[in-house]
Amino acid sequence: MKEDLPDLTRRILETYQSIGKINHLGHCPLPSLNSVIEIVDDLKEVLFPGYRRRQNLHAGNVAFHVGNLIDALHDSLTQQIARALRHEHDLRHDTECGAGNDIDFEALGQAKAVQFLSRLPKVRGLLASDVQAAYDGDPAATSLDEIIFCYPGVEAITVQRLAHELYELRVPIIPRMMTEWAHGRTGIDIHPGARIGPSFFIDHGTGVVIGETCDIASHVTIYQGVTLGALSFPRDANGNIIRGKKRHPTIEDHVVIYANATVLGGDTVVGAGSAIGASVSLMKSVPPKTVVTVEKPNLKFRER
Amino acid sequence: MKEDLPDLTRRILETYQSIGKINHLGHCPLPSLNSVIEIVDDLKEVLFPGYRRRQNLHAGNVAFHVGNLIDALHDSLTQQIARALRHEHDLRHDTECGAGNDIDFEALGQAKAVQFLSRLPKVRGLLASDVQAAYDGDPAATSLDEIIFCYPGVEAITVQRLAHELYELRVPIIPRMMTEWAHGRTGIDIHPGARIGPSFFIDHGTGVVIGETCDIASHVTIYQGVTLGALSFPRDANGNIIRGKKRHPTIEDHVVIYANATVLGGDTVVGAGSAIGASVSLMKSVPPKTVVTVEKPNLKFRER
Amino acid sequence: MKEDLPDLTRRILETYQSIGKINHLGHCPLPSLNSVIEIVDDLKEVLFPGYRRRQNLHAGNVAFHVGNLIDALHDSLTQQIARALRHEHDLRHDTECGAGNDIDFEALGQAKAVQFLSRLPKVRGLLASDVQAAYDGDPAATSLDEIIFCYPGVEAITVQRLAHELYELRVPIIPRMMTEWAHGRTGIDIHPGARIGPSFFIDHGTGVVIGETCDIASHVTIYQGVTLGALSFPRDANGNIIRGKKRHPTIEDHVVIYANATVLGGDTVVGAGSAIGASVSLMKSVPPKTVVTVEKPNLKFRER
Repeated sequence: MKEDLPDLTRRILETYQSIGKINHLGHCPLPSLNSVIEIVDDLKEVLFPGYRRRQNLHAGNVAFHVGNLIDALHDSLTQQIARALRHEHDLRHDTECGAGNDIDFEALGQAKAVQFLSRLPKVRGLLASDVQAAYDGDPAATSLDEIIFCYPGVEAITVQRLAHELYELRVPIIPRMMTEWAHGRTGIDIHPGARIGPSFFIDHGTGVVIGETCDIASHVTIYQGVTLGALSFPRDANGNIIRGKKRHPTIEDHVVIYANATVLGGDTVVGAGSAIGASVSLMKSVPPKTVVTVEKPNLKFRER
Repeated sequence: MKEDLPDLTRRILETYQSIGKINHLGHCPLPSLNSVIEIVDDLKEVLFPGYRRRQNLHAGNVAFHVGNLIDALHDSLTQQIARALRHEHDLRHDTECGAGNDIDFEALGQAKAVQFLSRLPKVRGLLASDVQAAYDGDPAATSLDEIIFCYPGVEAITVQRLAHELYELRVPIIPRMMTEWAHGRTGIDIHPGARIGPSFFIDHGTGVVIGETCDIASHVTIYQGVTLGALSFPRDANGNIIRGKKRHPTIEDHVVIYANATVLGGDTVVGAGSAIGASVSLMKSVPPKTVVTVEKPNLKFRER
Repeated sequence: MKEDLPDLTRRILETYQSIGKINHLGHCPLPSLNSVIEIVDDLKEVLFPGYRRRQNLHAGNVAFHVGNLIDALHDSLTQQIARALRHEHDLRHDTECGAGNDIDFEALGQAKAVQFLSRLPKVRGLLASDVQAAYDGDPAATSLDEIIFCYPGVEAITVQRLAHELYELRVPIIPRMMTEWAHGRTGIDIHPGARIGPSFFIDHGTGVVIGETCDIASHVTIYQGVTLGALSFPRDANGNIIRGKKRHPTIEDHVVIYANATVLGGDTVVGAGSAIGASVSLMKSVPPKTVVTVEKPNLKFRER
């Protein structure tokens, strides 16, 4: 039996030629998922100091701790972004290792890494508004600390706000690696492309899907199972999907969307101050201050 | 570029003053999320010996293994509970490190830790009833072992039953850290406050939400996507949410709630032996032995 | 307080007798969940080389890397399958450590391990079709690499296709350990027994449940929250569930099932080329090329 293994290994290796689309062999590595996860973890330590890894942070040592983290983040972000940029170049030009040009991917990666890090103060401001929105919106919350420690909605929006900055800086692939990692941990799937204003609160959150081209204003609250999705995908003459069009809804200020509701379509606008009831499926715009509910429960009661 | 990092770090450090709500700097650490997760892991090793970390447990060595675990749990629970109690004191009295009083948080923490550990035999009895209920209720289950190893519903109720004992002992913040960790791993969000009787079975479970003030009796079965939630939140004259009222439903013995059903409201009682059909949205009480279904599917069929 | 611990430990140990169903004490270990998870991780490294753990894989070193992995997989699969087989024997015959017979569980485990490993080239072919189906079906996808790195649907189907081969080889318990681990990471619950054709795509995926006796043909697309489930469970004269009957639906080629739809029942067949709309609850067969939608949204709009 064990003597079959070399032949079996050879048969597997052959599939790296015959089924070549799902392996990456070559001298230029892809971004590393593990490194990207470590980057996210380090970023959360910078954003919420005292809550996560390092205990006993105080005025006397926090500068060293954060200085160290930023230095390490600079290096690893530079490396991973450079890999992502070179890989995107190879995909577009069908080259290997960025050949046939003299682009300095390392320098491009470093520039984007520093631009990204310089946006962290802005991101902290947004996250503080999100944490406060969770406290104001959930009667089960006992303190801001509980929310920072535990709430999956805060975890998901933290990672998405970071990924969104990289997305805006046109860093390929890494933003999606980040948000899908958060999706796995929280059940909340927010595409890095979604534009989301301050004071955003997702309660419970499992099953939430927020598509790439959503526009969400400020003070919006969303419950578990809500989809902000696409109605249909435009296709070209060959039947291939056209990528990059606005296909997800716009949600204005102070809207609440209750559990398992679905709002679909790139032209759909939910006006400011509206409330979308549980399990509503909405595919058209509603004016400001509209309450949408399912008309009658249509329930049948009988004895068992 | 790299020479920008010190200035960039300084700008981040400044936000720890200007946006001070989401950092914890000081000489009194918060409870540690990692320590709490390790505590849960050790507790599961005590509750289900032979299934998890340690292999080859038998009558001759199990006493040493469990004795060691209980000893370590005593110490780490004492430390973490003391931190949580001191932190709660600081929040209430706007003090730092429990100053301005002579409360011995360590001693209080130890007392609660020992009380908690003494309830583990009771919790084991409840969990045995839950595992049996899963076997009796799921035709895909092949053995109790499979259920203990794999079923997310068992994982979620195990952590919730532990967290609920701490909640009853008025330990702050740690119970929620435990259940939200289980939520992340299973997609099942059960608040530590929910009171749940024996023989509880959640099948599949992703998307289940069970609120803080739910009362669930014995032999209740719940499927994926079910919400036992609040209808609305009472607010005080200033528009702030009033915390602590019963706002989630009561489910009596031998009730089954099928996938994606929603039962809302603190006054809603589902009578014993009732069945709530898939996707039903129920906001009022039903007497015992009631079957509730969506009246007609309202489906439209056409050729593509 | 601390002097209470020995007595407290003794009371817990007593429950291993009085509540004996949820502990496994004895000289024959169960399969190890941690080992099974490591096996899945190694298998993914073989299936998608260059994307996961090892960086800088190329034609000159990939044979060593994969050869090493296959060798280690052979050994750990043999050990874990042998444990699972011996455990199943003990359950059936109420023996301990496979006593009362001369079955060589190690040899049986090895045979199944080698048979399983020899199916990896076939599994790679199926997974390549799944990755391509994701690219063809999702306008947000920018490359095959992004899909392999990030998509939870690919993670879930990868683990299920591996677990399904072990299920077909009648390996007990381990397949379910694998798929429930993927369920925890993705929110997608596919039973190892489900038979799934090539080019299968699950988008977003949180809350998807696919039952044990589902038959899914090729080019099927499923969105988040979809349940392919059982209508009811047949019970024998004693009220015990009858296990092993076909109780989940059959989905033919090129069917799309949109978010939160539910298709139930072992006799339910969704004909080729059909589309099942969002939130539809279907409990009967539909002919090929049928579009099923919820008849009218039944929404009520009012001003706030």
